[in-house]
Amino acid sequence: MSFNSFGRLFRITTFGESHGPAMGVVIDGVPPRLELDVEAIQGQLDRRRPGQSELVTPRKEDDRVQILAGLLEGRTTGAPLCLVIRNRDARPGAYDHLKEVYRPGHGDLTWEKKYGLRDHRGSGRASGRETSARVAAAAVARQILANQGVRIIGHVIEVAGIRAQQFDAQEIERNPVRCADVAAAPQMAEAILAAKADGDSVGGLVEVRAEGVPLGWGDPVFGKLDGLIAGALMGIGAVKGVEIGDGFALARQRGSDANDELTPNGFASNHAGGILGGISNGDVIVVRAAVKPTSSINKVQQTVNRQGQPVTLQVEGRHDPCIAPRLVPVAEAMVALVLVDTYLAQLSLAAAADIPK
Amino acid sequence: MSFNSFGRLFRITTFGESHGPAMGVVIDGVPPRLELDVEAIQGQLDRRRPGQSELVTPRKEDDRVQILAGLLEGRTTGAPLCLVIRNRDARPGAYDHLKEVYRPGHGDLTWEKKYGLRDHRGSGRASGRETSARVAAAAVARQILANQGVRIIGHVIEVAGIRAQQFDAQEIERNPVRCADVAAAPQMAEAILAAKADGDSVGGLVEVRAEGVPLGWGDPVFGKLDGLIAGALMGIGAVKGVEIGDGFALARQRGSDANDELTPNGFASNHAGGILGGISNGDVIVVRAAVKPTSSINKVQQTVNRQGQPVTLQVEGRHDPCIAPRLVPVAEAMVALVLVDTYLAQLSLAAAADIPK
Amino acid sequence: MSFNSFGRLFRITTFGESHGPAMGVVIDGVPPRLELDVEAIQGQLDRRRPGQSELVTPRKEDDRVQILAGLLEGRTTGAPLCLVIRNRDARPGAYDHLKEVYRPGHGDLTWEKKYGLRDHRGSGRASGRETSARVAAAAVARQILANQGVRIIGHVIEVAGIRAQQFDAQEIERNPVRCADVAAAPQMAEAILAAKADGDSVGGLVEVRAEGVPLGWGDPVFGKLDGLIAGALMGIGAVKGVEIGDGFALARQRGSDANDELTPNGFASNHAGGILGGISNGDVIVVRAAVKPTSSINKVQQTVNRQGQPVTLQVEGRHDPCIAPRLVPVAEAMVALVLVDTYLAQLSLAAAADIPK
Amino acid sequence: MSFNSFGRLFRITTFGESHGPAMGVVIDGVPPRLELDVEAIQGQLDRRRPGQSELVTPRKEDDRVQILAGLLEGRTTGAPLCLVIRNRDARPGAYDHLKEVYRPGHGDLTWEKKYGLRDHRGSGRASGRETSARVAAAAVARQILANQGVRIIGHVIEVAGIRAQQFDAQEIERNPVRCADVAAAPQMAEAILAAKADGDSVGGLVEVRAEGVPLGWGDPVFGKLDGLIAGALMGIGAVKGVEIGDGFALARQRGSDANDELTPNGFASNHAGGILGGISNGDVIVVRAAVKPTSSINKVQQTVNRQGQPVTLQVEGRHDPCIAPRLVPVAEAMVALVLVDTYLAQLSLAAAADIPK
Repeated sequence: MSFNSFGRLFRITTFGESHGPAMGVVIDGVPPRLELDVEAIQGQLDRRRPGQSELVTPRKEDDRVQILAGLLEGRTTGAPLCLVIRNRDARPGAYDHLKEVYRPGHGDLTWEKKYGLRDHRGSGRASGRETSARVAAAAVARQILANQGVRIIGHVIEVAGIRAQQFDAQEIERNPVRCADVAAAPQMAEAILAAKADGDSVGGLVEVRAEGVPLGWGDPVFGKLDGLIAGALMGIGAVKGVEIGDGFALARQRGSDANDELTPNGFASNHAGGILGGISNGDVIVVRAAVKPTSSINKVQQTVNRQGQPVTLQVEGRHDPCIAPRLVPVAEAMVALVLVDTYLAQLSLAAAADIPK
Repeated sequence: MSFNSFGRLFRITTFGESHGPAMGVVIDGVPPRLELDVEAIQGQLDRRRPGQSELVTPRKEDDRVQILAGLLEGRTTGAPLCLVIRNRDARPGAYDHLKEVYRPGHGDLTWEKKYGLRDHRGSGRASGRETSARVAAAAVARQILANQGVRIIGHVIEVAGIRAQQFDAQEIERNPVRCADVAAAPQMAEAILAAKADGDSVGGLVEVRAEGVPLGWGDPVFGKLDGLIAGALMGIGAVKGVEIGDGFALARQRGSDANDELTPNGFASNHAGGILGGISNGDVIVVRAAVKPTSSINKVQQTVNRQGQPVTLQVEGRHDPCIAPRLVPVAEAMVALVLVDTYLAQLSLAAAADIPK
Repeated sequence: MSFNSFGRLFRITTFGESHGPAMGVVIDGVPPRLELDVEAIQGQLDRRRPGQSELVTPRKEDDRVQILAGLLEGRTTGAPLCLVIRNRDARPGAYDHLKEVYRPGHGDLTWEKKYGLRDHRGSGRASGRETSARVAAAAVARQILANQGVRIIGHVIEVAGIRAQQFDAQEIERNPVRCADVAAAPQMAEAILAAKADGDSVGGLVEVRAEGVPLGWGDPVFGKLDGLIAGALMGIGAVKGVEIGDGFALARQRGSDANDELTPNGFASNHAGGILGGISNGDVIVVRAAVKPTSSINKVQQTVNRQGQPVTLQVEGRHDPCIAPRLVPVAEAMVALVLVDTYLAQLSLAAAADIPK
Repeated sequence: MSFNSFGRLFRITTFGESHGPAMGVVIDGVPPRLELDVEAIQGQLDRRRPGQSELVTPRKEDDRVQILAGLLEGRTTGAPLCLVIRNRDARPGAYDHLKEVYRPGHGDLTWEKKYGLRDHRGSGRASGRETSARVAAAAVARQILANQGVRIIGHVIEVAGIRAQQFDAQEIERNPVRCADVAAAPQMAEAILAAKADGDSVGGLVEVRAEGVPLGWGDPVFGKLDGLIAGALMGIGAVKGVEIGDGFALARQRGSDANDELTPNGFASNHAGGILGGISNGDVIVVRAAVKPTSSINKVQQTVNRQGQPVTLQVEGRHDPCIAPRLVPVAEAMVALVLVDTYLAQLSLAAAADIPK
């Protein structure tokens, strides 16, 4: 079935295992005649790749993107694009000690029982490395969206209970936490390093803002923009919660506070996070994802082996003490993939109904 | 496009407007030879229908289900089922005063601009009444799931900041709030009535628990069980946040606390909410949806009319001061629809790979 | 699964059994703001319905279409349309003698073994009556196509080996055979009545021409216009062959004869039948379907019963001695459904790529 | 959109251009735990690749398959397979003279107008070389089918009006025409070489037989086995007609001749070609595709250039004087892809309904 495909009009199909030959993606539905900026794709991959700071895993991957299909003289043709990222620092042997045991917090047990076998080499396709293909595909989506004036900005808004108090988009890529608050960033970094020193990990919140989305994207009743975004974000490993606009806080408000009143100049507030009735309302789209602490920790844990016997486990290997910073480009990617898809759907609807887009 | 369809193997397509002739659903992919309990479908519709207490809208609808297709002598045949619910208490004229104005918190503006016209009659297809078709379809799904030992229980866990402290499944349908805590239920009811008296509304949290789901449901990487559930719940009107297991609280924990250790007798805890790596792990699945306060309130609000001029609006008509109690069967329905779909997918995979299901 | 759905952007889902309560269809993807001509839908149903002449089955059905959803003041809204046709002359009891036996040439055996049960009442969903829902849906498609200048004309080009020598579109609906050749029509009728008198049946060829289709419809490599049309036509019961343009005759030609040369005024010939490389080329689209003789005959045949024992069978009941005339609107419908879908796809592509449509 | 994907449960997505870096395919839905025979994939590619005899194009491609994803120790894992075939003998410059002109019989004009640009390098993705990816994917499908006892045999049954009179499966791969009649094969070869000597081309008929398909594959009403096969075959470039069983000949028969009577030992005849009511009936499936003469010929033809001016054209370059022999493995591939998909669907249905498969 098409469980490795995402999107309807801009449809991606990803493939590849963490310690196999390559990661990759086929994108079907890219409009023809787009001048593709390959360096911009590489730029997004560079944001996601490992080894960028002491806050993240030291695995060394240059994550160079190759284009196998779909381009003619730098432009898309309407044919599918195929983007491939070779795995360079694969060390399948390094995971032999995990072959017989299920790591707590991981999908080891569930994947093995479901499929009747398991790729233990760095989690195979269950690895976070799988998201590189999503980021590559989304980098194409972002070019289409940018041409429509849409800009997607992700940042870490909370780590280990430390909340950012400011939002300065310029700061985000200046610190390894990807925090938009220059004061909170070092505190967050410190909390991550403290957890790392303990052989432990911490969680956080990632916020994604989409600016410039015009009114009209999203397709009720089962293609609502909020539903699609929530599904897309919750489908990232480590994400355990999603909220839009004021989200969970709205559950404690009254309607008279929660409603965004309308004025001739637009909405007076944005509690709704830019989406009304499942359709973008022209305001900034604001969503947040709750990121659990990385499951791989160096502490001793109780678990069972394939025979069901109790064993203790201390996970060795390379991992991120807090995955939130590297999850930022991935969360942005999923929002971009949803947005480009709803954009194309709305373009189609407007063309067919003769409505100005 | 198929924006009114949901699911892959158990695929529903809903239709109908709040004040049109009928609501309905076609279900494709129902396994043949199922003895269909039509009264059980009616029972679920009865739980969702309006007019059940003073906490909800007084619209009078008996919501009787009719079966137009797919049954032979009480059994399914492999052909699509078509379930139809006639609208009895439609009052399209009652909404004429809303024709020229956009209600805050509603999709009035976005639907009208998107589609180039808007069904103002009780929101047309944007009405919560649209969910009756989902509930009817899910009632079929629930029969299939029940045959597999799966039971889905929803309840209101919080209203207006009042949190249930106990979970007694027996209590849920005994009080109009659908709260599983006998002590908290009357407090919640009081808060709802207080808001109603003010012409206002309140929000809350709905929790859904799925018991008896075996290990193996959910299909990485884009058919993960958590991603599908999140998308399904966020696609219900009024839901603004979704979390699974400990959800947002996990963002503030350390990995050593958040991981569920394994023992020969199963997991030692269930912070993950029954899903690991996007696949059910055999534990209880626990999800929560944040429900915003009903947008329709009787207070005076600022808004604009179709000409973009500022107007004040006081919404008349029949609505729920808190939609959480009636959202319980809808949230259950969406979880059931996702589960039956992942069940059929896993059945298919296991059959093809010769894995015991 | 969605085996009862057809199309991608204009997506129909049909339901209903021949002797159940109703036939129907949900259409998702109808552009909003279309002024729907309901009488035109009825007109197409009237062309397909039984009882029109002595050449066809005498079952009496008025096939009145009802619209359950999707219309507001005569216009589409972007919500799904639901069209329902009640079965009036259902006689489920009339088929009891077929409950235990498999008719030759029918799907009785295959449906029963596949689904583990069989709706023996006039073949249930395997009945040709199922196509009424397709015709209703296609009548909506035809209105969209007509607005683009596309006209779809079907006719019976051959019956029992008698081939039409002329094409006069005016003649088609003037004779019960739906033959465009005023001279051949009565010969064909005679051949049909002769077979009927023998308790036998005859086959024929149906041709469909689509005029006014602009260059650009169809989407390589798996959404080619010819592939879609062939699949659509072969999916009609009784159709056993499909050809496009010169079709099978091309297999015996040389390239220098078969190629359609281009001139400044268009193609010099149309051997290709209006499709090149899977995309419409602006010329008339011409396709033909081979229709087998009706399987239900009054002659004694050898078959087996459900116990696998040999029995002789003489099928009683109402059926068409030649189904080709009533298949004309069905074949047109399938071509229309494919065309509207490729039209919407091309509209979408052109809008996204900024190509004049 | 997913126009480069085919299948539902066994879903392939192809990519690549004739003179780009590579051809390839991602296969989603391969059951896990399959021992994959990579050499068997190569064997099928070898049958399709160019340069095998003087009857076909002399382009030199070794068509070596590489597996980028989806295998663990020789077995499938449930993750998508990615198969890639590098283009070795790409000569994009050799097509510069075709940049400004539209070849008769080709999709040059339609692709350029549709997409707003055209890959003139050996037709880009419109090249027959695109089918290599289908053949590779189908080679995986064939292994799954072979495990179920299904064998797919294609052969050239007619070339230039010369019809095979015998069917000896052993002969097929022994002669370059892939004809199952040892006497007709050299006559066909002679006809092809005669056309080649004239700078011309000839067409033919390809027949595919699928033996061992059990009763029950195919899913009415829009997933009928015959509809799927017809769509799949007509979606191969150069195919202009498809028939099943006796096909067009049935249009001239009477029902009493055309019906296949049933006996306790199975069907007494197989006019239906192994499919009844859209479902396989356990008999051999027999389909035929009409293949037009290759459009690329060395004769002078009239056409127009991009400015719409008349020009004469004599196509240089490497092409097949008759494509039927090389189309055999492609037609087999499309049948295999359809069959494996309907097999998985039936497996799923049977598992869900507790029907013995």
